[in-house]
Parts: sequence; C-alpha cells; structure tokens
Amino acid sequence: MARWQPDALGRLQQAALTLYGERGFDNTTVAEIAESAGLTKRTFFRYFADKREVLFYGAEELEELFTSEVAAAPESATPLDAVAAALDVVAAGFEERRELAARRQQIIIANPELQERELIKLAKLARAVAGALRDRGVADPAAILTAEAAIAVFRVAFERWVDPANRKGFQRLIRESLKELRAVTAA
Amino acid sequence: MARWQPDALGRLQQAALTLYGERGFDNTTVAEIAESAGLTKRTFFRYFADKREVLFYGAEELEELFTSEVAAAPESATPLDAVAAALDVVAAGFEERRELAARRQQIIIANPELQERELIKLAKLARAVAGALRDRGVADPAAILTAEAAIAVFRVAFERWVDPANRKGFQRLIRESLKELRAVTAA
Repeated sequence: MARWQPDALGRLQQAALTLYGERGFDNTTVAEIAESAGLTKRTFFRYFADKREVLFYGAEELEELFTSEVAAAPESATPLDAVAAALDVVAAGFEERRELAARRQQIIIANPELQERELIKLAKLARAVAGALRDRGVADPAAILTAEAAIAVFRVAFERWVDPANRKGFQRLIRESLKELRAVTAA
Repeated sequence: MARWQPDALGRLQQAALTLYGERGFDNTTVAEIAESAGLTKRTFFRYFADKREVLFYGAEELEELFTSEVAAAPESATPLDAVAAALDVVAAGFEERRELAARRQQIIIANPELQERELIKLAKLARAVAGALRDRGVADPAAILTAEAAIAVFRVAFERWVDPANRKGFQRLIRESLKELRAVTAA
C-alpha cells in the first residue's frame, strides 16, 4: 500500500521547476526529480505521464473552469462579455502562483519543444472556449474569433504578469489587455 | 551540372500532396515523391529540407509579404487598418491556389505533428507582424494583440475558404472575418 505523502504533487512540481531551472529541462531525469522531492519514481508517475507533463499539469482544470464560466455568464452577455467574465475568474485563480508561473515561463521559453507544447495546449483551450460559446448560441465565425481573441488576451496578459519588473495583478492585466483589444479593434 | 527541369518545384509539390492524400503523410517517402514527379531525390532536397517542409514551403515569403505590407500602410492607418490592408494583399496572392490549399489542409488536419508545425509557423508569423507594427510606433500590448487578432482572422477565413461547400473568395472571407472581429469586440 502507498504511504500517505503530504503534498507529494506540490513537492514534485517544486523539485522539477528547480531542477529544470538549474540544469535545463533536457538534462533532468524523472529519477532526479523524485529523489529531490524525497519521493519515488513510482509516486512521480502517479501524477505525471512524463517529465514534460509536470509543466502542463492543470491544463484540463483550466479548460474546465474557463468553459464552465463562459457557460455560466448571463444570457444577455455578449460573446466577448462572456469570455471576459470567464477570464476574470481564471485570472483570480492564478494570482497566488506568480512565482511558480514565472519560473515555469522561463523554462518553457528556453526550450522549443516545450514552446510547441504550450502552443498546442492554448490552441486546444481556444477550441474548447469556442465550443462553449457555440453552446450559448453564438454562431461561427464569431465563436472561434472571440475564443481566439480571448486566448490572445490571456497570453499577452500572462507574459506581462510574469515579467520580473511587473507589479500588477494578473486580473488587472487581463482587464487592461481586454480593454486594449477593444481599442485596437474599434472601427 | 544539373539539368534544367521545368517547374520541378511545382511537380514535387503536386506529387507530394497526391501521395500524402492517398497513403498518408507518414507512409510516404521522399524517394516516392521524387519518383512520382519524375525527378531525383537530389532535386527534391534542392527545394526542401525534408518531406514535412513541402507543406510549409513559402512560409518565409508569406511572412515577408505580410510584414512589408504592414510597413507600407499609410502613416495615418490604425494598427488594425494596417494589418487589414496587409491581409487583403496576402489573400489576393492565395486566391488561385484554393485547390492546393484545400488538399494541404486535409493532410495537416489528419496529422497531429503537422498541426503542431502549423501552429508554430503561425505563432512565428504573429510575432513578425507584431514586430512590423512596433516598427510603425505601435506600443505593446497593442502591437501583439493586433497581430494575434490578424492571425486569428487569417486562420478562420482560411478554414472557411478551403471548406468544400464554400464558394466565396479568400479575400472576401478575410474581410468578413475582420468585420466579424470588429463586431464581437465592439464595446
């Protein structure tokens, strides 16, 4: 029987980020991550399929949260208002994790394979958000364009948020970016 | 000395698209493409680094055209007007190649690795367009948001254009999608 291991998930994530940052993603093994967290490889694989997935853990929950918030927006909300409301909730959930998010971002920027993976995850998220908008009765191409715009806002705000010089909250940067998007697309 | 081979590039592209469509991308070799085009492998490698690159040939020219058109927009043009003008020129250049574009799209949709490659190329294009906007004095996040929006419009219009049921031109679909983007982001 597996022993109870308090916060094994968090310890593995922290150990992985530290090792990826110090040695590089490619030069770190699962065995080293597990050892550094004081856990076994077996425990590692209970949480993650491979060492790459440590960096993308939670993508499904993010998608679930995002789409359910789009679904929950008032019936009267425009497509962009619905995704704006969802972005607001999503951003609030990230707020405490800035330091981890910034370290993760550095690791991803340093590795083309991880950047590709990030693009794929975001494209999947955009498709899911477009699906949630269609479920609200939004037709295409409005649904997919709104979803793509929302993901662009998310990504731009995220990069600003994790910038070492930044002192603003993620939610605030999301709102600013959304406002900026409205400004640049104003006819 | 290499013999002169009329339209070797076009013949290789046609042969590759046909074989990828018939056998699947993974089950086609460079030797088979060359043979089917009546050319040698050596001629193939004069144009393409590998069999994947046949599908992405011209990405650099697209980027060059897109960014130079953004640069050429009147000084008074807003960021979105500048990318709209560029999209118009880009779309016109695609117009004659719908059949090839549609076949290419089917092959890419069928293969996750090719989809990833497509995402990476489009992300690179977005960064280049953002750079061209910055060169016009557009600040961030407006530059990157406008560029991301432009690429979303491009992609959405492209997918509509290559749809077998579609009868509209690419340029017209680009304009419609851009109008739709303005509509969904109107405050």
